[in-house]
Amino acid sequence: MKKVKGGVTAPKGFQAAGIACGLKKSGKPDLSLIVSAVPAVAAGVFTTNQVKGNPVIVSQDHLKNGLAQAIISNAGNANTWTGKQGLRAAYEMAELAAKVLGFQPNDVLVTSTGVIAKPLKMNKIRAGIKQIAGKLSTTGSGAAARAIMTTDTRPKEIAVKVGNITIGGIAKGSGMIEPGMCTMHAFITTDAVIDKRLLKKILQNAVNKSFNLVSVDNCMSTSDCVFVLANGQSKSKPGKSFIKAFEFVCEYLAKEIARDGEGATKLMTVKVAGARSEADANKVVKSIIGNFLLKAAVYGRDKNVGRILQAVGATSAKVNWQRFKFDWKIGSKEDIINVKLGVGQALAKGWGCDLTEGYVKINAKYRT
Amino acid sequence: MKKVKGGVTAPKGFQAAGIACGLKKSGKPDLSLIVSAVPAVAAGVFTTNQVKGNPVIVSQDHLKNGLAQAIISNAGNANTWTGKQGLRAAYEMAELAAKVLGFQPNDVLVTSTGVIAKPLKMNKIRAGIKQIAGKLSTTGSGAAARAIMTTDTRPKEIAVKVGNITIGGIAKGSGMIEPGMCTMHAFITTDAVIDKRLLKKILQNAVNKSFNLVSVDNCMSTSDCVFVLANGQSKSKPGKSFIKAFEFVCEYLAKEIARDGEGATKLMTVKVAGARSEADANKVVKSIIGNFLLKAAVYGRDKNVGRILQAVGATSAKVNWQRFKFDWKIGSKEDIINVKLGVGQALAKGWGCDLTEGYVKINAKYRT
Repeated sequence: MKKVKGGVTAPKGFQAAGIACGLKKSGKPDLSLIVSAVPAVAAGVFTTNQVKGNPVIVSQDHLKNGLAQAIISNAGNANTWTGKQGLRAAYEMAELAAKVLGFQPNDVLVTSTGVIAKPLKMNKIRAGIKQIAGKLSTTGSGAAARAIMTTDTRPKEIAVKVGNITIGGIAKGSGMIEPGMCTMHAFITTDAVIDKRLLKKILQNAVNKSFNLVSVDNCMSTSDCVFVLANGQSKSKPGKSFIKAFEFVCEYLAKEIARDGEGATKLMTVKVAGARSEADANKVVKSIIGNFLLKAAVYGRDKNVGRILQAVGATSAKVNWQRFKFDWKIGSKEDIINVKLGVGQALAKGWGCDLTEGYVKINAKYRT
Repeated sequence: MKKVKGGVTAPKGFQAAGIACGLKKSGKPDLSLIVSAVPAVAAGVFTTNQVKGNPVIVSQDHLKNGLAQAIISNAGNANTWTGKQGLRAAYEMAELAAKVLGFQPNDVLVTSTGVIAKPLKMNKIRAGIKQIAGKLSTTGSGAAARAIMTTDTRPKEIAVKVGNITIGGIAKGSGMIEPGMCTMHAFITTDAVIDKRLLKKILQNAVNKSFNLVSVDNCMSTSDCVFVLANGQSKSKPGKSFIKAFEFVCEYLAKEIARDGEGATKLMTVKVAGARSEADANKVVKSIIGNFLLKAAVYGRDKNVGRILQAVGATSAKVNWQRFKFDWKIGSKEDIINVKLGVGQALAKGWGCDLTEGYVKINAKYRT
């Protein structure tokens, strides 16, 4: 496996574009499109929040046949809690994109991030979709990555090559999940030849080990989604190394999200070993990365023992307290916390960030 | 029921004292003692953290017979994760207090709050306990309330009279739970004549509706405890109004803890109605009071609809989204969030505080 340039347009047969259609007051890019040359095998993982954005509902619907050829996304408005009109708007986004691309509407996936409970300005979206198809290019990944950003401070992009197959990905998210604004999105493309059931399984496993073990603020979004499109253009079937490469892409993007957490100055990497089960290891990872006090201590470079004990002890994970060990390495850009539960062999890894005055400032007056 | 002065020393037959024994660098009071004239029926509720402070273990042991006559507490050091020597120290605190008071050691409950994983300076404690017994008085509640404070900005004290019975309480806590420092303690005294099983039941019910529905930072302490001592000196058995008064005392102290949350500028009161069950209502209350984004929005006076939707939707509570309603009243010192789930009749109420730069500052460099 080696890293290559090009993000989601690195795999064969993918183009992307990103433009400003006028949803963001700042005038920054806010509409993105990713297109495969041929219908691709597709899978998605979505938020489990009871309140789901309208685009989540539409994308779940359009993924029923396990195929997709495009992803149309806007930033600046989440099209969530916007009633029947909002659901209609999400379907219309897919229809409009399908029309300009010559696809069927259910070949188009839709996502939106931004403010909740405000009607989407469909006049801007309609004009934007007409325009964006003309900007599609095989070097458009960066533009697409920028057009899905909200409070993100930088685009998040990766591509790797494993044998004849390429995997590319872009992501956004600056709160793990933030209904007001920072919902997590990740779009992954590959030219592998792959069965839809296997693709779904690989995606779910990789998400469980990456995006599901990242936290900026413990807040589950209404719009989270991760998509993968596999268009078969490499004419190669994936081997074992494909799964590792796919997981690498997901982990890379997940870490990028944590590192760019709202107000964050540092990545916090947590490794748990010696757990009875993976579920136990995950519980401890989540308790640590989501802990207000530990996050503040990482910011303050205060290696406070009690906070690790508190966070581990607060879980139901089995711990052998006589054999319990941990260490905490403070770095300039990353803190690494290793915890050993002394019970079994299971491991887990997860990522968070420090809690700073910046997070409070961003979120105290986000809409104003 | 009417409010009266005197805190834990308002009920008949209670005395208290608070002194500085030298554990706090600041020289502020850090040793407190509450004593009943006669052995009292007693009950306690403790942290469920796997890591328990040594005083928690000792107090659980000493409460086995359902009787207690004194509570000795220090602030500045939690005597947690201090090994066998720490457990010995906690037992010694009870023994020393028992000796100067002429009680049996198992009639004395012990609590400690402060830094974790540092040995308790027993020479200071020994000298302090010898001294404090001489300071006991029937007006000593305020001194005791001050001597259990850590990052608290003010003492928390209440007393009420219901018929012939008086109930008094003091509490500390400025993070709901904070292993480094801000563990929650509440001590309640009453002169009611009451059976130990009934007292335990009343305490557990009241704690479930008060202290268990307060959050400053979602962090479960290693030292939390709530005690009640009922010494029977009023010669009156409690009626129904006693339970209400007892719950009022717990709720008052719980709110005081939330209001004085680290860095907090505002109390956040959350009321949930229309839930399928009390468990569901509690889930929604906890999700809202523990939500980073909502806490930041309360601070920023930003009535962000999406954050309520996100926090409610993230729970497993049953919600009728067609009938779902909420309102958010912004006040100068308190925000009140009312949520109606539109399903059943169950209710819950809970308290939190805003998330401010102050919280980050306090916790980033707490030990330095």
